[in-house]
Amino acid sequence: MTLLSTLREELGADAVLTDPDVTAAYSRDEMPLAPAGVPLAVVLPSDVAGVRATVRACAEAGVPIVPRGAGSGICGGANAIEGCVVLVTTKLDEILEIDADNRLAVVQPGVVNLHLRDAVAKHGLFYPPDPSSYDWCTIGGNLATNAGGLCCVKYGVTADSVLGLEVVLADGSLLRTGRRTVKGVAGYDLTKLFVGSEGTLGVITQATLALRPLPQAPGTLVAAFSSTRDAGAAVSRIVREGLVPSLMEIMDAATIAAVENHLNTDLGAGSRSGALLLCQSDAGGEVAHRELAALQQVCADAGAEMTHATEDLAEGNLLMQARRSVHYALAALGANMTDDVCVPRTRIADLIEGCERISEEVGLRIAVCGHAGDGNMHPTVVYDAAAEGEFDRARKAFDAILDLGLALGGTVTGEHGVGKFKQDWLEREIGPVGLRVHRQLKRALDPDGLFNPGSMFSLE
Amino acid sequence: MTLLSTLREELGADAVLTDPDVTAAYSRDEMPLAPAGVPLAVVLPSDVAGVRATVRACAEAGVPIVPRGAGSGICGGANAIEGCVVLVTTKLDEILEIDADNRLAVVQPGVVNLHLRDAVAKHGLFYPPDPSSYDWCTIGGNLATNAGGLCCVKYGVTADSVLGLEVVLADGSLLRTGRRTVKGVAGYDLTKLFVGSEGTLGVITQATLALRPLPQAPGTLVAAFSSTRDAGAAVSRIVREGLVPSLMEIMDAATIAAVENHLNTDLGAGSRSGALLLCQSDAGGEVAHRELAALQQVCADAGAEMTHATEDLAEGNLLMQARRSVHYALAALGANMTDDVCVPRTRIADLIEGCERISEEVGLRIAVCGHAGDGNMHPTVVYDAAAEGEFDRARKAFDAILDLGLALGGTVTGEHGVGKFKQDWLEREIGPVGLRVHRQLKRALDPDGLFNPGSMFSLE
Repeated sequence: MTLLSTLREELGADAVLTDPDVTAAYSRDEMPLAPAGVPLAVVLPSDVAGVRATVRACAEAGVPIVPRGAGSGICGGANAIEGCVVLVTTKLDEILEIDADNRLAVVQPGVVNLHLRDAVAKHGLFYPPDPSSYDWCTIGGNLATNAGGLCCVKYGVTADSVLGLEVVLADGSLLRTGRRTVKGVAGYDLTKLFVGSEGTLGVITQATLALRPLPQAPGTLVAAFSSTRDAGAAVSRIVREGLVPSLMEIMDAATIAAVENHLNTDLGAGSRSGALLLCQSDAGGEVAHRELAALQQVCADAGAEMTHATEDLAEGNLLMQARRSVHYALAALGANMTDDVCVPRTRIADLIEGCERISEEVGLRIAVCGHAGDGNMHPTVVYDAAAEGEFDRARKAFDAILDLGLALGGTVTGEHGVGKFKQDWLEREIGPVGLRVHRQLKRALDPDGLFNPGSMFSLE
Repeated sequence: MTLLSTLREELGADAVLTDPDVTAAYSRDEMPLAPAGVPLAVVLPSDVAGVRATVRACAEAGVPIVPRGAGSGICGGANAIEGCVVLVTTKLDEILEIDADNRLAVVQPGVVNLHLRDAVAKHGLFYPPDPSSYDWCTIGGNLATNAGGLCCVKYGVTADSVLGLEVVLADGSLLRTGRRTVKGVAGYDLTKLFVGSEGTLGVITQATLALRPLPQAPGTLVAAFSSTRDAGAAVSRIVREGLVPSLMEIMDAATIAAVENHLNTDLGAGSRSGALLLCQSDAGGEVAHRELAALQQVCADAGAEMTHATEDLAEGNLLMQARRSVHYALAALGANMTDDVCVPRTRIADLIEGCERISEEVGLRIAVCGHAGDGNMHPTVVYDAAAEGEFDRARKAFDAILDLGLALGGTVTGEHGVGKFKQDWLEREIGPVGLRVHRQLKRALDPDGLFNPGSMFSLE
């Protein structure tokens, strides 16, 4: 029996797609620059048994599997490789349990992040991880990439909200990691090994997630600085003074200009503004009031030309709208390459100023915004894909920014991942011993290279 | 050249101990029930080169290495095995860097937890993990066991404060994991794989640790309940209402009696008291005042017979003294076996009541105290080591408590570890697939079983 007929028999014919016009929709994520092959088939199992059957059949046939959720990733991690089976987890979309008294939820990987947020909010609870694509990305993808978001400065990344997993291994067996308790040290932390492994070690079929009390509606502060240096100094002082806002985003001058143009509005930053800082406090009431006042004072002391604090939720949402529209504002200007470097928080100004230098060198616009509270910056190179040589210059700028990030003591990916796009950069960051250990672990759990081969790193 | 002469040549003769009267002091940790062998030698390298030389020499000679810090562990994880080399990291005791602006510290493994706490406090910073032995245990041991403490309810375990590691691998090569940035997803989370691996995968020679703003001096609440059921209900309601105290400890009636007797004091719980709850808030000022008031209200609503809140630090310390003296109070009553089960926070009362049943069945005193905020309970079986059959009955009770913990949806170790004492229980908790994955990972990184073989699990 061929692989396709086995898959059809095990999953049902409807769950196995082979029409190239249809499978094309599942062969790429949101990173246009990463390579993608044509899959042999796309399968959409609706239960764990279907996932296990798929893995066993592919292992038997020696056909690689690329697991994916919604495909919102931006490192090509979910991109098909030639002749593979793309295993889509979106039909495993049940919230199996919400245990409000123990503040945890048990979910299948296909649950959309926003759906989980809404469901637990009804119990007065909060699932913090909030990648930009939170209204359509899935928990499974969030787990596979250890997704971040705007919440991280106060609440950490996806890994910080995971208690345990159920994973289908390369031989089709089912591994349960972690636990339902808050603490536990029985054995190696297998949970954290699978979180962020980008589908290279197994297929996550269930997750037990830690929830938090639902925070209060946030108050918001916006501060405009004449230079990124001043804004960077404000971030350092906020960290130094032990303030922990629930959100702290930075936008440089190029980003401000693009957003003002796109939204046809004035962000109040003034024409000479070099950088905007957006902070929120979700501590509620008097505490939020004091946190915002303290943040405002630090910004003023650091030389802010304008600060404005509001505890009005609608006004705060309008200000956040500016931050959330950056992607669209830049997309309106041309093709984009968005970097994802994370630097020590004291080096944010150095990174932005370095991006200005690189922008001049390559003659392309580079707009920087990012999560200032944890140093995770997203410089975006804007280019005209049709113009001779611009792509190459954009790629040169993109790489120069990664280089700068490493030189500043940072990492080449703060939250987007390595996928099929930054393998060389991973190798450079972790070095030969780190790479060897990655290969040893991969071979230990997936000796035949069944899962997402060539993603993150190659076995040879 | 023999192994001993190689070690003496590489490390210097003073760093290689072989006198059995001296090496005996390094052959055990604080768990008397775990087996310990006689080491061939105890080495105390004073730099990373010495650790690497030791690992290479032992690998060459086929002699196993048991890494250890101060030996404060309580699962036998640091116990020598027959003919091994015990590698003590206490001479690698430098705090290499405190970067206050990026809130991190870089330390060697032999730094004592308290010394690090004191050093960073001078910068207004806080290293949360606070195992009971914090005044003599080392950071290396804390990392190897993923140590917990009283802080976990608000600040998490050791793993939550680690950004990166330097590890000597089985072939003597040096692996650097993680980063100095707050976020990062470049590759597998090797850092978390080594944290809690109990010296079975490598020797940690350096750690980059995340620090927090130094909290305010805590306010304290004590609440006495007539039954553990009421106290358990109070814990559940505190969790349910989204309150996050910086500490929440529970003591059952047997513990209260032992402490009152030992300190010759009255904890104010009343003669019929079934359980005490101790909570703290370190939020400072008005916020702490409100948190304590809210905690007090919940306790009263849950039926507390007495509640007393104080923002006086000295009085709070006196109350905490009662909790911290539990170990000594019980030691004064006889030999001890202290369990370390972690259950869902809603099942604390079930666990304590179960311990009362087990106590009656075996005819031995069982006192329960623990970290109520995260469900990590430490039932202690008290027995007379000299009395015929008491040890066996104590061991039976100890195992019955682990059994109960698992039945309640918990884990057999919340923070102490598996070591050379709970291997069978680990296997039972993680199951055959989990065990197989542990063995695969161990073989991948330590194919000859050089590091702490037989600890945690065996390779066969």
